[in-house]
Amino acid sequence: MSTSGLPFDDIRELLSNMPGPDETAVAAVRERDRFLTKPPGALGRLEEIAEWLAAWTGRPPAVTRPLVAVFAGNHGVTRQGVSPYPSDVTAQMVANFASGGAAINQICIANDLGLKVFDLALELPTGDITEEAALDERACAATMAFGMESIAGGTDLLCIGEMGIGNTTIAAAICHGLYGGNAEEWTGPGTGAQGEGLTRKIAAVERAVAHHKAHLGDPLELLRRLGGREIAAMAGAILAARMERIPVIVDGYVATAAAAVLHAANDTALDHCMIGHVSAEPGHIRLIEKLGKQPLLTLGMRLGEGTGAALAAGIVKAAAQCHTGMATFEQAGVSDKD
Amino acid sequence: MSTSGLPFDDIRELLSNMPGPDETAVAAVRERDRFLTKPPGALGRLEEIAEWLAAWTGRPPAVTRPLVAVFAGNHGVTRQGVSPYPSDVTAQMVANFASGGAAINQICIANDLGLKVFDLALELPTGDITEEAALDERACAATMAFGMESIAGGTDLLCIGEMGIGNTTIAAAICHGLYGGNAEEWTGPGTGAQGEGLTRKIAAVERAVAHHKAHLGDPLELLRRLGGREIAAMAGAILAARMERIPVIVDGYVATAAAAVLHAANDTALDHCMIGHVSAEPGHIRLIEKLGKQPLLTLGMRLGEGTGAALAAGIVKAAAQCHTGMATFEQAGVSDKD
Repeated sequence: MSTSGLPFDDIRELLSNMPGPDETAVAAVRERDRFLTKPPGALGRLEEIAEWLAAWTGRPPAVTRPLVAVFAGNHGVTRQGVSPYPSDVTAQMVANFASGGAAINQICIANDLGLKVFDLALELPTGDITEEAALDERACAATMAFGMESIAGGTDLLCIGEMGIGNTTIAAAICHGLYGGNAEEWTGPGTGAQGEGLTRKIAAVERAVAHHKAHLGDPLELLRRLGGREIAAMAGAILAARMERIPVIVDGYVATAAAAVLHAANDTALDHCMIGHVSAEPGHIRLIEKLGKQPLLTLGMRLGEGTGAALAAGIVKAAAQCHTGMATFEQAGVSDKD
Repeated sequence: MSTSGLPFDDIRELLSNMPGPDETAVAAVRERDRFLTKPPGALGRLEEIAEWLAAWTGRPPAVTRPLVAVFAGNHGVTRQGVSPYPSDVTAQMVANFASGGAAINQICIANDLGLKVFDLALELPTGDITEEAALDERACAATMAFGMESIAGGTDLLCIGEMGIGNTTIAAAICHGLYGGNAEEWTGPGTGAQGEGLTRKIAAVERAVAHHKAHLGDPLELLRRLGGREIAAMAGAILAARMERIPVIVDGYVATAAAAVLHAANDTALDHCMIGHVSAEPGHIRLIEKLGKQPLLTLGMRLGEGTGAALAAGIVKAAAQCHTGMATFEQAGVSDKD
């Protein structure tokens, strides 16, 4: 962080100086793929994934240190009765992650992925976005910087997930703030809001966006007003991964909303990101379309924690293994097409 | 095999005496699921998969010895110029499987799956189905029996795949024979037939079904006339898995066509089967709909070898791990809904 200037200055600087894809590495993947013992294109999206890994690492496709990073935060907006679960559950689930009892722990075991969980001042919920900014600029920038530091350099495939009671309300507010439409189309049940609970949630999203309306033109300003600590940290982590040439798999609605803030600031900012799984949360597919992405998996999940990204990481690992491990027609003594 | 009676008699007997799902095991999964540290339903299809494993094994969900079984055969119909690759490639690819150079080997490494490859008299292609039956009844029944023996007892999750130059033509003929419509809607590029090659392929499917038309009412008779050795072996393996309470993941168009023969004989015959991945081969999704199934993955692959099933097995393993490994609300000290 710079010690002078405005807190967001360093982040704006990064957002305008991101590295692009390594076209030489992509060309090498395409060239090798031509000789692998399969019909051209027969591995479908696995072939795209091999190219994507090469593009954003600058090396042949490989996944040797996959990491799931889960960021947890608490939200003042829960006082509006937007979630059927109490805010205490955020810290309780962080403890559950630590003791290995959550869904994400199991998927990390199944797919042999590392897991790091970062809890962000859970005892200090952000401001209630229906009435005030979630964070001031300094706190938002510092949390982004924390997210950047937390993952830098320690992985070659980063899965981004989150935990935070109330944060599908936050995601809906971010999307409504970024893309307009009405609050209802961005707001879903989250952990299970329905009936009056869902009505309160939609109303909270509507009031939040209306309250901050005059200040939403700048994506980072929108982030500090409508976001939250885990949202800011995820945005920082995704940006840091780009700078360090680490491909990213973004998890569900909340993680994708954090990513969308970067995309609003620079529409190439998510070129190193894939969406692992389209959530059953209805706003997610709408958001994914705004970002021009195609999710890898559709399994009806809506849990967060990085679970969708971690499942997708299994496919990505297999794609890398196919590209590097397969024999060529010549090596295998297999006849190519007539 | 019985030593008296007609060769298909034993298979018909099995098809009318298949075990059903274990409802007690399913109920136990549903009961435990209620207390796991997640909102109800939040793991989507992973929860369905946990129930499916319990239903067809009769035990709590677990995948400890997953196996990919790949069956390879050669087809007389290749003389009709239906594939851009020569028939020699079948044996060459079997050698490639043995030396670890194929895509399926890599996916088995990535997902920690066992792999067994069965080549079925590759030096003896089946009859050209445009003019004669692929197999006589005795050979067809013996090949089904081989398929039954080959996998019985050695796994708790069976992925069924195949290799055989010309066998998407066979799959198309089976589907056209079972479901009618026209040959064109069941016939796709396979390993890459296009233009005149695809026209020849469609014509071969049309001629084959027309030639055998009077004898296609009985699914096993259809199998011996329009099928092939790897098709018969896959049908046998799927049936044996049912008898031995082994859940099955069926791979792409060709493997699903083999499964469809069983379904035509008894419409509950595939209740223990899931379709791992919907192939880019256009007939596959149409066939899956006929079977009333919903594929787990859609990754644009069209390779066979069991690759789609093996990728899906990674998801199934994760589903079992989630169900058995997750803590309950009480164990984790997490508050349930307000």
